[in-house]
Amino acid sequence: MNLLLLEPCDFTDKHIATIKDHRLQHLNKILSSKVGDTLWVGLLNAQCGQAVIQHIDNKQAVLTVSLNQSPPKPLPLTIILALPRPKMLRRIMRNCAELGIKDIHLINSYKVEKSYWQSPFLHDNAINGYLKEGLMQAKDTIMPNVHFHKRFKPFVEDTLTGIMGESETFVAHPYHAEAMPAASHNKRVIIIGPEGGFIDYEISLLIQHGVKAISMGERIYRVENAVTLLTTQLSY
Amino acid sequence: MNLLLLEPCDFTDKHIATIKDHRLQHLNKILSSKVGDTLWVGLLNAQCGQAVIQHIDNKQAVLTVSLNQSPPKPLPLTIILALPRPKMLRRIMRNCAELGIKDIHLINSYKVEKSYWQSPFLHDNAINGYLKEGLMQAKDTIMPNVHFHKRFKPFVEDTLTGIMGESETFVAHPYHAEAMPAASHNKRVIIIGPEGGFIDYEISLLIQHGVKAISMGERIYRVENAVTLLTTQLSY
Repeated sequence: MNLLLLEPCDFTDKHIATIKDHRLQHLNKILSSKVGDTLWVGLLNAQCGQAVIQHIDNKQAVLTVSLNQSPPKPLPLTIILALPRPKMLRRIMRNCAELGIKDIHLINSYKVEKSYWQSPFLHDNAINGYLKEGLMQAKDTIMPNVHFHKRFKPFVEDTLTGIMGESETFVAHPYHAEAMPAASHNKRVIIIGPEGGFIDYEISLLIQHGVKAISMGERIYRVENAVTLLTTQLSY
Repeated sequence: MNLLLLEPCDFTDKHIATIKDHRLQHLNKILSSKVGDTLWVGLLNAQCGQAVIQHIDNKQAVLTVSLNQSPPKPLPLTIILALPRPKMLRRIMRNCAELGIKDIHLINSYKVEKSYWQSPFLHDNAINGYLKEGLMQAKDTIMPNVHFHKRFKPFVEDTLTGIMGESETFVAHPYHAEAMPAASHNKRVIIIGPEGGFIDYEISLLIQHGVKAISMGERIYRVENAVTLLTTQLSY
């Protein structure tokens, strides 16, 4: 944790925050924080800055907070991901937040098992927890937006065009593929399939709707690495 | 697993391999393999190809193997990493192998806890297991070489120059840093510090020995993401 993420309800006065939950445990157990220590902090969806610990015990920590810096710039990328296995979801969501991606769409695909959509890891509380871990790693405060689309065809036919707007949109696929384009500061959309990939029908439908298939080379990457790799190759 | 990695001792005849260990369990439990199924296979440090299952039960699988394809090209990168926490090591080694990195040096640094060097995860068997997971993901067969250097100063003063040769060498560091250079097909060396970073003395010593400090921007990445990110940005 490189930044302690505060929320409006933590503030008991304009510049005073009181922490009681797992963040207090982190201060006590991992950082061994003491009165007088200075921490990097940020207010959720707002500015970053520093806090000084005024009081700390095993029930609460009281901080004086000064917020005067902007969070890191977001990446100009929207990511559309076939819903990953619940076990992978935490790491992938945390990665997206760490990288600075602010728009995430989780979609269905032929090879997404139906049971994944029932996972308790998809509840807002769980997903928001994973995203906050990524923000605290990257010293960011701006929460990504996550959207769910449980049907592939209606998503592509009715929703995708709106998400794409004027942005170049890419799907990683070993066939019908162009070479990887150069990185750009422009807004872009990246689509990443499930383990085992999109089926031919899905790729055809995406291409019909203006998506470009690009090749990641001969290697096959785990989804979380594909996210980092494509993000780095396509965006600054 | 996108490729079943075979070893010379699996071959009972020139084109016949017999599998009995955790790979057999994977065929039975994850892939539900049946007689007649075709699999991607590769021989460790040699060619890739396909195998057909001739016999399979819960004791062994017998495969006829045909090896006629080259593994994916290695990346022209050497990576030097401060020894990560044992818990992170598996994922980082697996990532390096998945990305195609073939030369890995694990070094000491001020912020590497001494106990990490005693971890059973550093034994050859454990490390090689993690690397094979990465190879099987990426459909690769060429095992990376891993070297250990338990003292920082002697490593930099006596060993680093030999590793660098004529290659540009970079260390990711937020201060004294140049902008990220463009990707290149040339051989390069990347140095990545521990959680919390190298200390000033270490950075100075590296710079004295011809290493260039480069900035990864305002965000702070977990080590495994820093590896993927720098690899992607500096190499094709």
